[in-house]
Amino acid sequence: MVIGVPKEIKNNENRVALTPAGVTELRKHGHVVYIQVNAGEGSGFEDEEYIAAGATMLPTIEEVYGIAEMIMKVKEPIASEYDLIKENQLLFTYFHFASSEELTQAMLAKGAVCLAYETVERPDRSLPLLVPMSEVAGRMAIQEGAKYLEKPLKGRGILLGGVPGVKPANVLILGGGIVGTQAAKMAAGLGAHVTIMDVSLARLRYLSDIMPPNVQTMMSNEYNIREMIKVCDLIVGAVLIPGAKAPILLPAPCLKKCVPGRYWSM
Amino acid sequence: MVIGVPKEIKNNENRVALTPAGVTELRKHGHVVYIQVNAGEGSGFEDEEYIAAGATMLPTIEEVYGIAEMIMKVKEPIASEYDLIKENQLLFTYFHFASSEELTQAMLAKGAVCLAYETVERPDRSLPLLVPMSEVAGRMAIQEGAKYLEKPLKGRGILLGGVPGVKPANVLILGGGIVGTQAAKMAAGLGAHVTIMDVSLARLRYLSDIMPPNVQTMMSNEYNIREMIKVCDLIVGAVLIPGAKAPILLPAPCLKKCVPGRYWSM
Amino acid sequence: MVIGVPKEIKNNENRVALTPAGVTELRKHGHVVYIQVNAGEGSGFEDEEYIAAGATMLPTIEEVYGIAEMIMKVKEPIASEYDLIKENQLLFTYFHFASSEELTQAMLAKGAVCLAYETVERPDRSLPLLVPMSEVAGRMAIQEGAKYLEKPLKGRGILLGGVPGVKPANVLILGGGIVGTQAAKMAAGLGAHVTIMDVSLARLRYLSDIMPPNVQTMMSNEYNIREMIKVCDLIVGAVLIPGAKAPILLPAPCLKKCVPGRYWSM
Amino acid sequence: MVIGVPKEIKNNENRVALTPAGVTELRKHGHVVYIQVNAGEGSGFEDEEYIAAGATMLPTIEEVYGIAEMIMKVKEPIASEYDLIKENQLLFTYFHFASSEELTQAMLAKGAVCLAYETVERPDRSLPLLVPMSEVAGRMAIQEGAKYLEKPLKGRGILLGGVPGVKPANVLILGGGIVGTQAAKMAAGLGAHVTIMDVSLARLRYLSDIMPPNVQTMMSNEYNIREMIKVCDLIVGAVLIPGAKAPILLPAPCLKKCVPGRYWSM
Amino acid sequence: MVIGVPKEIKNNENRVALTPAGVTELRKHGHVVYIQVNAGEGSGFEDEEYIAAGATMLPTIEEVYGIAEMIMKVKEPIASEYDLIKENQLLFTYFHFASSEELTQAMLAKGAVCLAYETVERPDRSLPLLVPMSEVAGRMAIQEGAKYLEKPLKGRGILLGGVPGVKPANVLILGGGIVGTQAAKMAAGLGAHVTIMDVSLARLRYLSDIMPPNVQTMMSNEYNIREMIKVCDLIVGAVLIPGAKAPILLPAPCLKKCVPGRYWSM
Amino acid sequence: MVIGVPKEIKNNENRVALTPAGVTELRKHGHVVYIQVNAGEGSGFEDEEYIAAGATMLPTIEEVYGIAEMIMKVKEPIASEYDLIKENQLLFTYFHFASSEELTQAMLAKGAVCLAYETVERPDRSLPLLVPMSEVAGRMAIQEGAKYLEKPLKGRGILLGGVPGVKPANVLILGGGIVGTQAAKMAAGLGAHVTIMDVSLARLRYLSDIMPPNVQTMMSNEYNIREMIKVCDLIVGAVLIPGAKAPILLPAPCLKKCVPGRYWSM
Repeated sequence: MVIGVPKEIKNNENRVALTPAGVTELRKHGHVVYIQVNAGEGSGFEDEEYIAAGATMLPTIEEVYGIAEMIMKVKEPIASEYDLIKENQLLFTYFHFASSEELTQAMLAKGAVCLAYETVERPDRSLPLLVPMSEVAGRMAIQEGAKYLEKPLKGRGILLGGVPGVKPANVLILGGGIVGTQAAKMAAGLGAHVTIMDVSLARLRYLSDIMPPNVQTMMSNEYNIREMIKVCDLIVGAVLIPGAKAPILLPAPCLKKCVPGRYWSM
Repeated sequence: MVIGVPKEIKNNENRVALTPAGVTELRKHGHVVYIQVNAGEGSGFEDEEYIAAGATMLPTIEEVYGIAEMIMKVKEPIASEYDLIKENQLLFTYFHFASSEELTQAMLAKGAVCLAYETVERPDRSLPLLVPMSEVAGRMAIQEGAKYLEKPLKGRGILLGGVPGVKPANVLILGGGIVGTQAAKMAAGLGAHVTIMDVSLARLRYLSDIMPPNVQTMMSNEYNIREMIKVCDLIVGAVLIPGAKAPILLPAPCLKKCVPGRYWSM
Repeated sequence: MVIGVPKEIKNNENRVALTPAGVTELRKHGHVVYIQVNAGEGSGFEDEEYIAAGATMLPTIEEVYGIAEMIMKVKEPIASEYDLIKENQLLFTYFHFASSEELTQAMLAKGAVCLAYETVERPDRSLPLLVPMSEVAGRMAIQEGAKYLEKPLKGRGILLGGVPGVKPANVLILGGGIVGTQAAKMAAGLGAHVTIMDVSLARLRYLSDIMPPNVQTMMSNEYNIREMIKVCDLIVGAVLIPGAKAPILLPAPCLKKCVPGRYWSM
Repeated sequence: MVIGVPKEIKNNENRVALTPAGVTELRKHGHVVYIQVNAGEGSGFEDEEYIAAGATMLPTIEEVYGIAEMIMKVKEPIASEYDLIKENQLLFTYFHFASSEELTQAMLAKGAVCLAYETVERPDRSLPLLVPMSEVAGRMAIQEGAKYLEKPLKGRGILLGGVPGVKPANVLILGGGIVGTQAAKMAAGLGAHVTIMDVSLARLRYLSDIMPPNVQTMMSNEYNIREMIKVCDLIVGAVLIPGAKAPILLPAPCLKKCVPGRYWSM
Repeated sequence: MVIGVPKEIKNNENRVALTPAGVTELRKHGHVVYIQVNAGEGSGFEDEEYIAAGATMLPTIEEVYGIAEMIMKVKEPIASEYDLIKENQLLFTYFHFASSEELTQAMLAKGAVCLAYETVERPDRSLPLLVPMSEVAGRMAIQEGAKYLEKPLKGRGILLGGVPGVKPANVLILGGGIVGTQAAKMAAGLGAHVTIMDVSLARLRYLSDIMPPNVQTMMSNEYNIREMIKVCDLIVGAVLIPGAKAPILLPAPCLKKCVPGRYWSM
Repeated sequence: MVIGVPKEIKNNENRVALTPAGVTELRKHGHVVYIQVNAGEGSGFEDEEYIAAGATMLPTIEEVYGIAEMIMKVKEPIASEYDLIKENQLLFTYFHFASSEELTQAMLAKGAVCLAYETVERPDRSLPLLVPMSEVAGRMAIQEGAKYLEKPLKGRGILLGGVPGVKPANVLILGGGIVGTQAAKMAAGLGAHVTIMDVSLARLRYLSDIMPPNVQTMMSNEYNIREMIKVCDLIVGAVLIPGAKAPILLPAPCLKKCVPGRYWSM
């Protein structure tokens, strides 16, 4: 198959859909790969690396869409790309159709065959293309949270891990899936007291097997959450409600006055 | 020198002053060792082991005192032993003279040369014969404390380490010396949240280097102690006040109503 | 449904069948909950907490049985409660019918609908209501075992973790399920040398992945057990034989003379 | 002694020189403590806590300077405070006189007795009032560094700890003292590959005893530094050159083009 | 069944097919076991141990083959044993028929019933009799690899874990199954920087849960392997290609000139 | 000073006295460095690296000795080098004069100024140039010991760390100094049960603070050693007796018949 990878043009999107490693694998299976010049720049991959891996570089986005049977992207196409799409052309990217009727109608009008990353499911119902995003999100959540505990961002001036002689922060993680597990590891690695809540006792048992001893596990129910948010300094929401856009919502009054954490959802 | 080891006769004293390993070392330096039959029974050493190590067994306590230039014991002599002691005989044991004038006068009257274990000091002011006692005391403190958190002993029915899904106990350890360090390791090993307080920042820094992450360190001062005893389930007093019999004393009203812990001192 | 929680009256039973967190969950699903005054006292829950969670307190056990469609308890009803039970009333508690014909006949006579906690099974044959009990049992086993190694309870005066300069104890755990896993973690946390035996190599492999390095795994068979009990200081029986009352039984002669351990069963 | 604690007025200084715990200690030694209203606000201490600890609150900075024999502050006095200072009044704060002749002359002119925190030395030449600052600096360095590796701050979009399937970052820490040790722990806790360099083999040996296995130690010399900065993603300068304002300086050309790290000095 | 265990006669084969523990188990199920004298010598089991477990010792290999309904061995029979085999006699051993037509024809000619260890499969397709071999192979691989990094075997004189002040070696492990997991644990335990590659993200996630922090995981694909072998000091091939004799093969030119590692396959 | 580094010519000596990093440091202090062509080959340093660091390469050993005021070597000069040495020339290398009168006389005859690495002492009596050798020796000891437990070298076929389901080996380390500490870390990292013996309780206490839990510490005395060698599979002698050539010697009869370990000395 002839595959094309355009440079992302949506604001602040530095990623690229295909690494040189990916090019090598596709070439081994007989596919032909065209990459737009500079497409990998934001992710630290140079054109030479793609060429060495067997890709052909094309200077413009029009050429990439023009030659490819399948387009691989990161973000959904934006309005300026709609007219580049050909009938029956395969588009493989994150679409999140539910959040944009305009996009949905445009794709239908063009007759494109759309494969949304976020819906790719294995027979066991796992979502292989969401997992790596979740791992990044979980690790980033703690890095972001640490920032919001600093004074310049109106936090209380707390270090997650304390210092010798000063207490560490309490971090509450709602959900023990991929996001929550990665977040817990990062927070524990920084020395915080971490509590993971989940509704599955079996998952909590596995987590208590593999986590360091500054992580405690707790049944997730409304009562326990209400108790814990009174004493924690950072809350990470790590619950996936399939199909929902919004993360878990807690009634505002039950949040302490000066909790500097933010909800982070996956 | 001719050394004698009588069987301890004070109530509940199961220890023996000399192990077979000790006999071997003394023999290598040319000393002669007499041990009372069954002296090692309470510590799990059989007469055969002493004999194999080079000791001679004597059937009665009278024979041991009669032949020895130096007596090695664990506990101070009790009244019934006073008359066995000979003038100028060396007595090497725990004496704690400050707590018994009767004992002091008896030893003076007999003309014994008394070496009290608890006062043996190295040039760097360390107390080598107290250290092993402190290590045992620190480890026992958690074992004892765990017991007093159980219902049958009127505790609150708390497990130090919690279980997956239930919070671990908070353990406060006052003093980061030998007793406190050993106690903290045991409590942390059981999964509790442990706080060690000490007045030395350098010691707290070392402890934060070597302790697992469920141990936090904190400056010891009245304010911090008062704050922490409000939220902890077990308190271990691990402060040595040289010469004092009593451990650290906190005013009773600052203790929570249902704290099941007890003060344990070294 | 109208749910009632009486105060437990069987000797030494301090637990309560429903926590305030549980009341909140039941209320969210539309159930009405009545709790006997002081029912949560032994577990550290005050009446005010139940009321805040949405329960109604009733002063006597008769009123609780009288109003409830379903009774939630911890222990089986004792003779004095039989006449409080109404025909078709749901009873949800541990029953262990196999061990009491009298209880079984009484329930049949009253026409109660009995749900025994210990028999609730998931489709994958796991026993969700036994798991938390097992976790507590496994952790308690080491706490109890440590006690029986102390001199006052006729033990050999051994500390599970030794102290610097003295060898730790050898702990043998028969069975690597929930009880055995929790027991191994506690014993290892105290510094003992731990051996877990199980008949499943896959389970042993998982345990060797997650346990600290002072835990070794070993195939469970008669030969290995006989070898190990010669050198271990504490044995924890952690094998569930479904339907059996008695734990694993080893022929007495193969036990060493001075092993102070006791069998503890799931 | 009569001690006064004014509210800090230098820009962005949220700290306060004395905690309620400190008030309690000073009171126990017979001192009288006056604190300006709201002085503890930026550090999370409320006036009520100071009052409970035994301090008297004063509404204006003029009153605090007027009554106190010793002033305790965090930052050096700024111009607007000069005239509040009385002859022979003790000032205990960070001064850094070497960096401001104006400040030095002003203090001389007022006849104040100035004790600079940063110069307080123990007989063993340690700097007890700098140590806690260094611990915070070391921990913050990694938090800051992580930020500068993110795309929004022009970093390369690298997560310090990687994610499963993607390599972690390489972090180089120059100096294994207090700053470097804390920084290394944080970076290692996040999963990075960490290298600490120091000129003392004895210190490197201690660090290799207590650090997790993703920290390696290396002799610090120009050759090794030049080799390492070619392959590392973040550099933390943690070398104290007593008396110097500037941190360690490396010739610019030896830095890789896209190293997003910044030098952070003690 | 009557079971016979001959002494292995193939060169350098020190193992024995049945331990005394195995004899005990077979006896409990009613089987009769004959063992050739000295069969356990190479594995450290003495004849007395087999006798104590219930076996009968036979002096010659002819007697063992003559009496047994099933023969248990480690290695395939060699030519000198063919004539000892009886029609319909069960042979339970490693056969690897694919690699020897001569052996296959000989067994067909004798009419033996051959059960090859290496083909025994559970319903879930796991290979229970290969797993323990793989665990040993994985652990040995690092021990062997360490040897080949030493000077006497023409290695580069590198210690896997470095020493304080000198960098540890980079170890690349291809495959995260049983061999790879055991190899990674050993290499990490020695202090090396370890990279495990696998094609399953779920397996890499589990490995990153249980491995110490000096182990990183990485997707296995040609591009990544080519990158990593440029910088690693030891490569362990731990990929099972069922039915294949040869391990994974990488084109020679992509190996660095002085990589002293060897491919080790399972 | 003019410094010369000849290529080592003693058999099997692959090391070089000066690394490129060392050249850089010497150059910074104003010294001139001459290195014999290929001197670094056995240690993996190429001539280009020395040149880049500021050294001048000389083709023959005669030129190096001829120009240098100080010669830096690894091993003592051998007979063929004696005549290259000039009067008053500084020789800095390992000499071990006590073991070779011939060497001592030769150096006296030539009038060389000999600095023996092995005798360089700091004011605190530490031996800085022996420490790195000891670290390597300690780590190598376990690698060597593991080899001698394998069958091909007549060992018992034991893996130090066992495998899941099989017991790990017992390793005894005599001496808790630098050699012993490194050896213990390696053995523990491989999963063995390790016992370190030392005569200093303070050292044992530090070791028990920093070692993983499969390392136990024990007082070193003849009795304990005799007990332990009965049950251990590998013994590492790590005791330095200053001035002595021979390591610790234990009477042969107390060694178990099949202990495959060898004594390894500092």
